[in-house]
Order: sequence, then C-alpha cells, then structure tokens
Amino acid sequence: MMDLFGLLHLDELSHGLANLSMFPYFDMAHYIVSVMALREQPGALEVSRLSPFACWFSSMLFCFGGAVLSGIMLAEPPVAPLANSTSILLASIIWYLVFYCPMDLVYCSAALLPFRLVLSGMKEVTRTWKVLGGVTQAHIKYKDSLLVMIAIGWARGAGGGLISNFEQLVRGVWKPETNELLKMSYPTKVTLIGAVLFALQQTHYLPLQKHHLMLIYTVFTVVNKSRMILTGTSTSPFASIESAIYKTLFSGYSSYAVLTGDIKKACIDNGTTNRTTLNATTKESRKNGAAGNRIPVSPVNGQSGLLKAKEESENAETTSCKKTN
Amino acid sequence: MMDLFGLLHLDELSHGLANLSMFPYFDMAHYIVSVMALREQPGALEVSRLSPFACWFSSMLFCFGGAVLSGIMLAEPPVAPLANSTSILLASIIWYLVFYCPMDLVYCSAALLPFRLVLSGMKEVTRTWKVLGGVTQAHIKYKDSLLVMIAIGWARGAGGGLISNFEQLVRGVWKPETNELLKMSYPTKVTLIGAVLFALQQTHYLPLQKHHLMLIYTVFTVVNKSRMILTGTSTSPFASIESAIYKTLFSGYSSYAVLTGDIKKACIDNGTTNRTTLNATTKESRKNGAAGNRIPVSPVNGQSGLLKAKEESENAETTSCKKTN
Amino acid sequence: MMDLFGLLHLDELSHGLANLSMFPYFDMAHYIVSVMALREQPGALEVSRLSPFACWFSSMLFCFGGAVLSGIMLAEPPVAPLANSTSILLASIIWYLVFYCPMDLVYCSAALLPFRLVLSGMKEVTRTWKVLGGVTQAHIKYKDSLLVMIAIGWARGAGGGLISNFEQLVRGVWKPETNELLKMSYPTKVTLIGAVLFALQQTHYLPLQKHHLMLIYTVFTVVNKSRMILTGTSTSPFASIESAIYKTLFSGYSSYAVLTGDIKKACIDNGTTNRTTLNATTKESRKNGAAGNRIPVSPVNGQSGLLKAKEESENAETTSCKKTN
Repeated sequence: MMDLFGLLHLDELSHGLANLSMFPYFDMAHYIVSVMALREQPGALEVSRLSPFACWFSSMLFCFGGAVLSGIMLAEPPVAPLANSTSILLASIIWYLVFYCPMDLVYCSAALLPFRLVLSGMKEVTRTWKVLGGVTQAHIKYKDSLLVMIAIGWARGAGGGLISNFEQLVRGVWKPETNELLKMSYPTKVTLIGAVLFALQQTHYLPLQKHHLMLIYTVFTVVNKSRMILTGTSTSPFASIESAIYKTLFSGYSSYAVLTGDIKKACIDNGTTNRTTLNATTKESRKNGAAGNRIPVSPVNGQSGLLKAKEESENAETTSCKKTN
Repeated sequence: MMDLFGLLHLDELSHGLANLSMFPYFDMAHYIVSVMALREQPGALEVSRLSPFACWFSSMLFCFGGAVLSGIMLAEPPVAPLANSTSILLASIIWYLVFYCPMDLVYCSAALLPFRLVLSGMKEVTRTWKVLGGVTQAHIKYKDSLLVMIAIGWARGAGGGLISNFEQLVRGVWKPETNELLKMSYPTKVTLIGAVLFALQQTHYLPLQKHHLMLIYTVFTVVNKSRMILTGTSTSPFASIESAIYKTLFSGYSSYAVLTGDIKKACIDNGTTNRTTLNATTKESRKNGAAGNRIPVSPVNGQSGLLKAKEESENAETTSCKKTN
Repeated sequence: MMDLFGLLHLDELSHGLANLSMFPYFDMAHYIVSVMALREQPGALEVSRLSPFACWFSSMLFCFGGAVLSGIMLAEPPVAPLANSTSILLASIIWYLVFYCPMDLVYCSAALLPFRLVLSGMKEVTRTWKVLGGVTQAHIKYKDSLLVMIAIGWARGAGGGLISNFEQLVRGVWKPETNELLKMSYPTKVTLIGAVLFALQQTHYLPLQKHHLMLIYTVFTVVNKSRMILTGTSTSPFASIESAIYKTLFSGYSSYAVLTGDIKKACIDNGTTNRTTLNATTKESRKNGAAGNRIPVSPVNGQSGLLKAKEESENAETTSCKKTN
C-alpha cells in the first residue's frame, strides 16, 4: 500500500491534505451549504419571516449540530460551540446573507450549479476532519472502545442529520415517523462508514497511515457528491452491498414465514398448554396494532423526498428564482 | 430483626446472594426479557424489517436505558455503556437471535411459559443490583441527599420505562399522551419502592443490613413477578396502599367541590372587585380547555393495555407462533 | 452615571438590594407564582387528579427549570437541584397547598389581586438574581465568551418557559407547533435583555457597577409586571423597538419580492442552464410544502392566548372560585 502511494507520488499530496486548515474557507463552505439546506426545508422561509431568532437557532444547529451532539454524548457542555466566537460570527453572517440579503443575491448565486458543486465539494472535505476529530476525541477518553469511537465520530460528522427531529421542533415542525436511524440518508451513511474506517485505523486494525486514509476517504466523498449533483441522482453507491448484507443477515425470519417446517410445528405443540390465555391477549394486541399505533411503514417510504431535499437538493434552484419561469 | 434472620439461617443465604455475580447469566436473562419486550411492542417487527439499525438501537435502549438515563442525570457520558464491549456484544447477539433467528427458534423457545418464568425471575434479580448500584453511585457524589439517591436508583432500575417516549421515537412512534410518570406500570413502581428502601438503608434511616434488604427485596420482586406470570393478572400489589394514600392526601380539592361552606363565599366576596375582567378571561380559557388542549384523561386509561404489553406481557405468545392456531 | 446615583441617594439602596437574601421569602413567592402558573395551564387540574406524581414533577420543572436547563447546557448534573433539600421541600409544600389544600383556600387567597401583585413583584426580583447567577457561573467556565454568558443567564432566568415543550410532555400534552423560540413571551424577552445587560456589565462593555444595574433592572421588571397586572394588558413594552429592528434587518427578502429589478433577471438568466431539472423538483417540493409539512403560521398566532395564560394570567381568578358567579 505504501509502495502504491509512493509510486503515484500521492504521499506528498496526502501530507499536504492532512495539513490543510479548514478555517476559514472550508468552514465557510460548510456553513453556506448547511444554511442553504435549512432554507430548502419546507416551511423554513415562513419561519425566517415569523421568528428570525428561531431561524438563527436552527441554522446554528445545522452548522454545529455535530459538535453539540458529540458534546452531549461525551458529557461535555453542549454550549461549547458558542464559545468559539469567530465561527459563530461567520456562521451568523452567512445565515443572515442567505435568508435576508436584499434581492436574495447570495442565495441565488450560491444555488447556481458551478458554485453549488464547488461549495458542496468543500463541505465534503470538512466531513473528513470532523469525523477524525470525533474519533480522536473519543480515543482520548475511552482508550480501546471501538464502538464509542465510531459513535462519536459519526455524531460529530453527521450530527445535523441525527438531531433533525429536535432541530425541526425549534421551527415548530414535528415528524416523529421519520428519523435518520429508521431511514439513513446518503450523508449519514457515508459518515458512518468514515467513522468505522477512522476508528479501525486509530486502533491499528486497518494497516493504513492516517494521512493516506484521509486522502482516500476525502477523494471518495468529494467524487461521489460531485457525481450525485451532476447526474441529479440520489442512488446510494452502497445500495448493492446493503442489499447483500440485508439478505444474508436479516431475512431469517421472513424466509421462515414462507417455510412450514417440522420444527415450527414442534414449537407450536409445546405451546398448547397456555393456548387459551394467549388467544385473548392476541386479539387485543392485534387490535391495538391495527388501530392504536402508527406503524411507520408508509411514512418512511414517503419521507425519502424530504430527506433528499435536506442534504441532496443540490440540483434544485431557489423558490424565488423559479417564480419568474 | 437480626435475630429473626439468624433463627431462620437466612444470614448465609443473604451473604451468598449479595456476592452473586450478575455477569453473564443474569445479565443475559435481562437482555433476553428486554429484547422480547421490545419485540412484543406493536409495530416493532415492522421496524426490524425496515431498519435493523433502528431496531438494534431500540434494543440497546431497552437493555441499557437505565445506565443511559442515570448517566445523563449525573452528567456522565451517556455513551459510556457502549464502552463495555462484552455487554454490548452479548446484548447484540441476543437481539439478533430474538429478531432474526432462522425459523424464529429462539423467540419461540424463550416465550414458552417455563422459560419465560425463569428468565423473568432472573431479570428481577438484576433489578436489585441496578437499583443498589444507582443509589451507591449517587451517594458518592451527593453525600446526604436522599432525593438524589432515590432519583438515580430509580432511573438506573427503571430507565427503559422512563425513557420510553424517546425510545419509541427511534422506531418512529410518538405517543405523547402516555408516559411512565402519568401512569406508572408495575415495574416502575416496584423500582421506585426499591430505590426509596435502599436510599433509606444507605443513610441509616432503615435499621437493616444491606445484604438482608437485598434478600428481602429480591424475594419480593421475584415472587410477585412469578405470581403475575402464572395467574396472568396485572393487578398491582400496592393498589390498596396507593388508594389509601390518594384518598388521604390528594382529595382535598375534590371534597371541596362538594362542600358549599362559608369560607368559600368569603373567598368569592373578596374577589368581586375584579370580577368583570375575570369573566372575559375565564370564558376564553374555558374554551381553550374544551377544544384547544388534549386533556389526557381517556388516553391514559386507554394506555394501560399498552404498558401492560410492554413489561408484563409474559403470558403472551409470539405473533408468528399464533398464526397457526 | 455615578453622580446621578449619588445625587438621588440611590447608592445605598442599590447596595441594600444587592445584599438582599432571596431565601426564603422571595424564593417562596417564586414557587407560589410558578405553581399557580402551572395550575392555570389547560388540563393541569385533570393531571393533578390523575397522577399527583406527574403534577409534582411538572411543578418542580416550573420552579427549577432554569437550574435544570443551565445545568444541562454546562454539562453539570441536571439532578443537582434535588440535592438542595430545603428548596425542594419548600416548593413541594407550596405545590401541595396550591393543588390539594382543603377548600382550595391557598389558591383562592393567592389569586386575589393584591396578593398576586405582591407575589408577582417578588418573583420578578428573583429573576435578577437568577440571571446574574447564570452569567457569573458561565463567566467562571468561559472567561470571555459573551454569547455563552448570555445563553446561560437567559436559560437560568427563563428556563421554565424555554423547556415548556418537555414540561408539557410530562403532563401528556404535546404542542410541537409552539415554543418560546418561535414566539417569545414577555418574561422570556425581558430575561434575554437582562442576560445581555449583565453579560455586557461582566465583560466591562457596559460602564455601570453591578449593584446599580441590579437596581435598574429589578425596578424595570417589577414596574412593568405590576403595570401589566393592573391594566390587564399584555402588550410588550419592546413592541416598537422590535418592529423597528425587524423592518431594518429582516425584510430584505420581502421587499425583494415586490421589486422586479434588473439584477434579479440577471440571476435568472444565469440559471437557465439547469432549468428543466429544476421545474420537476420545484413542483414536488411545492406539493410537499402545501400538504406534507405543518407550516407554523396560524398555530403560532393562535398560541398567544396560551402563552399569555402561562405567565401573564395574573388577572384571572381560579376556575373553582368562578363557578359560583
């Protein structure tokens, strides 16, 4: 692996990338793309008129959600991002320009395809830094716990999405039937994969140097994002792998539903002793299942449009720009 | 009291119990019963098909909810349970087997009455350890605060129930009209009583040795649980005490509604000065009360079936097993 | 400024005020007004009958919400207020008397105009102490961060209102379309202004001594509250300033909607390259906007009555007292 990197003269490149400073240009790109993602949420423009403060608070959760979530998970003050005045000021200026700029100049410009492509690419670069930051922070507190490292790296990188239910609540929107755990969007998935890779690298299970992994992961996310914006597709590159894993691991019970084997009959015969009590309970619970609770089958399918709108709406123009068509 | 224990040769027994290790058998029983309780929630099987990850996360909240909640309450990392790899691995294997085992063997077996009885009894034993752990942990941080000890002991022992609203949110279910504070289930109640007893013992208000109290409380919970499974009843053993306390303490105002005493008239007469303004306000608030807000009277009564289903569904068989009836 | 204070002999007064102890009389007034505010919430009386425990927990959140919220924000144990046994005992006794006193004597008396006026005035005094406490606490942890100081001071002073969504959840009520960030009530606003002033004083941007600021702010809040109770009005004294700020800063985009300038056309012309894809996306998102999400326009307007009821219901008598009219 080292040889390959040496051969392709990528070693200097990866060192250069690892020493790149996120502040201010990449951070700015992250703030612009995040605030634009908020603005493209249904109902967000109304909130920005009704309550600029709730809109600002929502924007800050989009920009610093990862830091807030990983802070809560590690019992560190969730208010800490506010202490970084420069970042907050920068994000607030961008929030103001995106939502309230006269003639909507800033949003209209940033929504143009070439700008959107560059900004989204730069935002993807910050993801690498955030995931790595989270993994490193967890490694300091919990030496050998792979799971904690993955969790914190993931929370830091994809925090805005993971806390979206509570971010929406700030804007008076409540969609309990959908969340990023029930149906992961592409950014959440790619961040999870990144967190796993960096955690494995940190614990030396993955025989790669940190700056090489940073280069590979960054290139992968930037290329993928650009491809998705240019082709306007939202198909995940992991779809086939996911499907294979799902079929192998999680279909034991479904296939059982088709089978009518001998083992099942045995299972039932053993259960005959307390059959009578069960029937009563069953009917009650079946009734509950039918009417009382909200089985999240159809809403989950229906939400994909919404999640797409949130982080993958790169090929959508502004509402205001479209009115003149 | 000591004499009685000596007389009955229970001293050695209580010492033996106090030195019992929860890991791995009792912990396993706790994980199995908890994951089965999740599976018996309406809609849980659909979630396990749609999103194995959300299902796993929910299972972990059922298994480690107490540790997460008490961690948050003491400002300790809620991510800490993830650092205990062995427990997480054990709970994850059990989650996998209960939900995805080919031919549903594991769930079908564990749902049989004799197994359910033994597993539920063992789970009740872990409750003693968890409540005691919470009380001890709070005692270290807050020396003399009885209330903090009770709160943390309760949270550690009944955490899964207390955070059920947020656990349900992970699965896309939201039932705001019901929670464990509005209508406590039997496990929540018995844990609260345990937390009070252990906190009193810790502060030496209760003249009992710790291992004796552990024996008494464990025997009480196990016997009660077994009785409830075998008779299929869900009547709380505290019903009469609760009713007496309620009638004594919390019916002052209701009895007042019947009375038309002189004192009341005096109260009204003093209020005549600002009567006119009040009438307007009253009507408005009465209107709000009638239409605007959701008075949780009927849902609370209606929820009892659900709460029962959650932790007391020991006498219910599996959905899959029932299809053949 | 110092001269003016000297001239009016206010220096001694402000020193006297600064040395005033909140415990027990002012704290008691705060608890009484807070618990009464809970009781005047629609549905609260039903909850107090159904589940005294949920009612008690809600009352504690009304009384100690600020301490809980600022604790969470600074990663300090949210359970800490429970450790102050005297305060909890005092608040619990008041909770009991307000909700369950025979013949409802306590609530009826405290709801009379003269008592309500004095109690509300005293409660406003505690606000100054709470805001200052929050700002000081944040100053110790985050030396120079103005924003953190404002946030913690605000949370400490107006915590009960800011966490109202979660407080309502305890009572089985869920109103996601309304919160204190979307539509601030008067107490939340005045606390925010106080937090800004005290944070500026702490960082020496405001050339005032602490005890002078305490006097000015306390007099302002008490006078304002008394005026609002006596006149029965709920118009905010900041309405004109707010309106001016809003028009200056947050109407850039609205005014743009009226204009049809050349710059806008240019913005559109640049966008023609990816017009076709956009139209499809637009229609979909427009449809979502119309049906799928809950735009919080009308509910927010509709909630004002509720928020008024919560903290400004000083001119409303009790439901029980009114029945005899």
